[in-house]
Amino acid sequence: MTAWKHGASVFTIILLVTLQLFSLNGQGQTVSIPLTAEAHNFLAHQALQIRINAINATTAAQSGHPTSCLSAADMIAVLFFATLRYDYNNPAYANNDRFILSKGHAIPVVYAALRQLGVMTEAELLSLRKVDSPIEGHPTPRYKYNEAATGSLGQGLGVGVGMALYARHHKLVYRTYVMMGDGEMAEGSVWEALALAAHENLDNIIGFVDCNRLGQSDQTAHAHHVEQLAAKCKAFGWTTLIIDGHNLNEIVAALQATQTAKGKPVMIIAKTFKGSGLEGIENHAGFHGKPFNQADAITAIDALKKRFADVAVCTGPLMTPPLPARNQPGLAVQAPRSADQVLAPDKKLSPRKAFGLALAELGVTDERTWALDADVKNSTFTELFEAKSPDRFVQCFIAEQNMVSVATGLTLRGGVAYAATFGAFFTRCYDQVRMAGIGCVPLRLCGSHAGVAIGQDGPSQMALEDISMMRAIPNSIVLYPSDGVSAYALTLQMANYTDGVSYMKATRGDAPLLYPLTEQFPIGGCKVLRSSASDQACIVAAGTTVYEALDAYQELKAQGIMVAVIDAYSVKPLDAATIINVAKAAGAKVITVEDHYIQGGLGEAVVVGCANAGLTFQLLAVTELSRSGKPEELLALAGINSAAIVAAVKNTN
Amino acid sequence: MTAWKHGASVFTIILLVTLQLFSLNGQGQTVSIPLTAEAHNFLAHQALQIRINAINATTAAQSGHPTSCLSAADMIAVLFFATLRYDYNNPAYANNDRFILSKGHAIPVVYAALRQLGVMTEAELLSLRKVDSPIEGHPTPRYKYNEAATGSLGQGLGVGVGMALYARHHKLVYRTYVMMGDGEMAEGSVWEALALAAHENLDNIIGFVDCNRLGQSDQTAHAHHVEQLAAKCKAFGWTTLIIDGHNLNEIVAALQATQTAKGKPVMIIAKTFKGSGLEGIENHAGFHGKPFNQADAITAIDALKKRFADVAVCTGPLMTPPLPARNQPGLAVQAPRSADQVLAPDKKLSPRKAFGLALAELGVTDERTWALDADVKNSTFTELFEAKSPDRFVQCFIAEQNMVSVATGLTLRGGVAYAATFGAFFTRCYDQVRMAGIGCVPLRLCGSHAGVAIGQDGPSQMALEDISMMRAIPNSIVLYPSDGVSAYALTLQMANYTDGVSYMKATRGDAPLLYPLTEQFPIGGCKVLRSSASDQACIVAAGTTVYEALDAYQELKAQGIMVAVIDAYSVKPLDAATIINVAKAAGAKVITVEDHYIQGGLGEAVVVGCANAGLTFQLLAVTELSRSGKPEELLALAGINSAAIVAAVKNTN
Repeated sequence: MTAWKHGASVFTIILLVTLQLFSLNGQGQTVSIPLTAEAHNFLAHQALQIRINAINATTAAQSGHPTSCLSAADMIAVLFFATLRYDYNNPAYANNDRFILSKGHAIPVVYAALRQLGVMTEAELLSLRKVDSPIEGHPTPRYKYNEAATGSLGQGLGVGVGMALYARHHKLVYRTYVMMGDGEMAEGSVWEALALAAHENLDNIIGFVDCNRLGQSDQTAHAHHVEQLAAKCKAFGWTTLIIDGHNLNEIVAALQATQTAKGKPVMIIAKTFKGSGLEGIENHAGFHGKPFNQADAITAIDALKKRFADVAVCTGPLMTPPLPARNQPGLAVQAPRSADQVLAPDKKLSPRKAFGLALAELGVTDERTWALDADVKNSTFTELFEAKSPDRFVQCFIAEQNMVSVATGLTLRGGVAYAATFGAFFTRCYDQVRMAGIGCVPLRLCGSHAGVAIGQDGPSQMALEDISMMRAIPNSIVLYPSDGVSAYALTLQMANYTDGVSYMKATRGDAPLLYPLTEQFPIGGCKVLRSSASDQACIVAAGTTVYEALDAYQELKAQGIMVAVIDAYSVKPLDAATIINVAKAAGAKVITVEDHYIQGGLGEAVVVGCANAGLTFQLLAVTELSRSGKPEELLALAGINSAAIVAAVKNTN
Repeated sequence: MTAWKHGASVFTIILLVTLQLFSLNGQGQTVSIPLTAEAHNFLAHQALQIRINAINATTAAQSGHPTSCLSAADMIAVLFFATLRYDYNNPAYANNDRFILSKGHAIPVVYAALRQLGVMTEAELLSLRKVDSPIEGHPTPRYKYNEAATGSLGQGLGVGVGMALYARHHKLVYRTYVMMGDGEMAEGSVWEALALAAHENLDNIIGFVDCNRLGQSDQTAHAHHVEQLAAKCKAFGWTTLIIDGHNLNEIVAALQATQTAKGKPVMIIAKTFKGSGLEGIENHAGFHGKPFNQADAITAIDALKKRFADVAVCTGPLMTPPLPARNQPGLAVQAPRSADQVLAPDKKLSPRKAFGLALAELGVTDERTWALDADVKNSTFTELFEAKSPDRFVQCFIAEQNMVSVATGLTLRGGVAYAATFGAFFTRCYDQVRMAGIGCVPLRLCGSHAGVAIGQDGPSQMALEDISMMRAIPNSIVLYPSDGVSAYALTLQMANYTDGVSYMKATRGDAPLLYPLTEQFPIGGCKVLRSSASDQACIVAAGTTVYEALDAYQELKAQGIMVAVIDAYSVKPLDAATIINVAKAAGAKVITVEDHYIQGGLGEAVVVGCANAGLTFQLLAVTELSRSGKPEELLALAGINSAAIVAAVKNTN
């Protein structure tokens, strides 16, 4: 095996100059270009070893998807041994080419290649899927050479589009390669990514479809009719190249052709065979996700060595191309102006607009900042960002899944990307947010149009499950500011939260500011807005309902009943200690009130956070389907307005 | 206005015979066919009145999207006055044509047409978006003529595909029409639906794209390049017709052409103008979602009347085609065999396989039953259904969003549709499930591969947020059986739950049966598996963790510590009363244990359900990112195995 060493001097670029290019004007042609015998043998040898390594790894694990690896093995060999420019001693290097395996279940094929490159030891390879190993069943960031967490299909291309946009904007020369399976081409999210890449005229992203015909349980929709898939990609604005994914000449030629693509992304559609190389298994159904046992693995590897006997002992030259010179530009990062420098203290302001103002400020002061929209920029006020930083604003059109994946790609490369839409529509991309959580990606999300308070547009537009969704992402934070000052301050802080996904729920309506412009809002804190020595209950509210709670306070006070009021702007992490302290001094009675379904929302967070403290609880929340109506009518119908709070307080007495 | 009366005798079919057909071999041609002057004037008059009604309704509401209505007005006139066969006295009639407005924000244009048909009164029309009105900002089932709840874009076509599949299977002759906006064509879910319709060779579904060029905040990706959209649809296997969406001749001709489509679905791609008919607004940005005030509405309507002066007072004939004869076949419904007739008492069985067995039984005994798969039928065991009822099994390929939408469409027409995939992948289609909830659709969902107990495949494949998600759907039920008997029984019961979405979380591993085969599992109940007079704590578990709790019971008993164990197979509704009773007799100490994130799961449901009962709680749940490993290793790492339960019990003492 060739030990990998960094340094251009060890690279031997013997094949690239021998190639004729694919014509990128012609669609889908398959031109076979002869490699030199030496180059061909070297790549074939690597492909053989990759097959063997993938079988060994999954056999050692006794789980995994060896046949899904084998269909990709030849392309992976060409990618890792004759295409990708990557300094394995420095995975953080800004101009390393990126390779995303969207068909994440086949990740052992990548580990098999890294084993061949000497990046991974045999022991590491054979630790696949073990509890103390960084190499898991699907790619996660536990292993530093994994470009992105995948495993929920159809997401890799969108992530790649984000990386490609990042490169273009910052004039980085890395190229982004994404390999998909044919099965996942059924996922609509893939077509969202295709559409955006073409709309953006990206020519630094290259897609592969490993068309091995067989899904998990059935033949894929297109089977081996690769021309149908090519026609779709072409209609979506991509240059398409159909190849035999087991013909090294064709793979090399196609990849070489992509180097000169201009103004359009290129999709290489490879006809392959699942289980490629193994007679009786190759192109047969029933072998998805089935590792070989030890005996069968030995038989299979013997068969492979016989089939590829001519290259079984070849070593040959390493052909990885040289790395480009480092040219990551320094990004300007200045402190953003704080709320007191931007907001007017006596003016009504909606949290969503305050979000937009803060984001626009970040765009100007911090060149890492990006904003992504799904055609609601005039609702979320990301248009304020666009006006000042148009080059880092991405119009994703009405494709929320891809918006989140693109934001993930931007963030993985170093961007501080905020994606915003109606809070309700984050349900559309929950899987993408979930995968960002698994990928430990500090995605910043803002959902506007919170709850029944949006009024007439009706339930389909009301975010009533977003807190629940976002709380259930590991390492996430969930912020729910009530006024413009807190929304502004928290938006700025999201830029600095890097442990996971941050979500802000931003209400729609204009409202008076509740806080001095210099107020601080630490993540994990809350604000005790009202309290006295004679409190009879503690009202915990967030967002819209803070105003309702303050109205209730006034009404109750007029009736001689004192209550404490807490603004729980940080729903996760929750400041349970303060709530418990205030509540204990208020008759140990807690009333939560939220414009969100009762399940998984503020109330449940408070009850669980404050369990075992000797408190009693009343939860006011949305418990039934809402409808169209005026905001105040719907708050009343849901039993979360000031009158309902007043009634609840009296009910506790 | 022509009052609508049912009965073929009042229909005058004067135009259909005068039409030359579009050639369905030619793609995208726009052949203008002259209507008779009388027919043209009549339709133009209806289109004018529809415009006026839509403006009046949104002006009365002072919210809504009049300009999005105007681009569709001419097509809606032709659809409602010369195409749809529908008995408005009997919306339940099996062979009424179906019309789904996927661009739901434009629903006033449909109400405007129904007003013209006399189906709706003027007072009803002007009640749009009011809190006591059935006609909301977006279509919901509060109004009986709304075919499906829409408003989250890109979902209507998938619902339509479900309705078309239903019609074909049951030999119903209704046709399904779906109108989309051009903006929502960016949603990947639309392309999932296009792909499946073509794969299924559906020729009883007709799509429209109302290409009015302008989204909410920006020009759409294709602007008025309708040929690009047509090329995409063609590549996805649809016959495409490009028309001028304001030319009545072209609209009529295109719709007539669709009547003879064979073997392929047809997409009519209509170039239109947002705000069509109003100079200064038509085709101008900045008018999305902006109703006219009273004065501007009067001006606009005057302008429309002048522009269409020649048809302003035309009445003309009603041209709605005659209804087909009723031919809904009677569907055979027999009682399914119960668990004791199907399962073996002494055999290990996984809940997911028990689900598959019950589903297969339903398929045989109840002809209304359908099963939908996203290429994991051998994991969810829907393959058992397919083997016995292949004609009602829909392979949706890896497109979970569309799978749920198709299931919604099937259910809305009378099917009892079960959609199953890995529980984790319901995150991919949460918006579609949410919309089913808003549509009051009794969707049946089963998520397999629950929690960290799946082991080596790693976090991307683990359902750890599904209970949280599904609890937050209004009127949903969430079931989490531990063994094969309960899974079988609960699967059967889901068929009879019609108040909303039902979700079953079905674990992966084979396990001994816990219950006698004749055991009953009422929804909203739980099972007290262990209890004694000397219990020191009450353990509430579900699914996998029931077995861990029983192991802990044994271990604790050996140490002289008695505990109660409850199987909370019905997480929503939860049997809080029983839990409280058992816990009070067990030292008032509750320990919940679940293979799910702590947020929104069983623990939070129990704590909130049992709040204020004087109990203390310990919640054992997944609180960190999991990884690959053996199931028992991961249960231990997450602190939800029997050892963790034992420790928690001792911790309470």
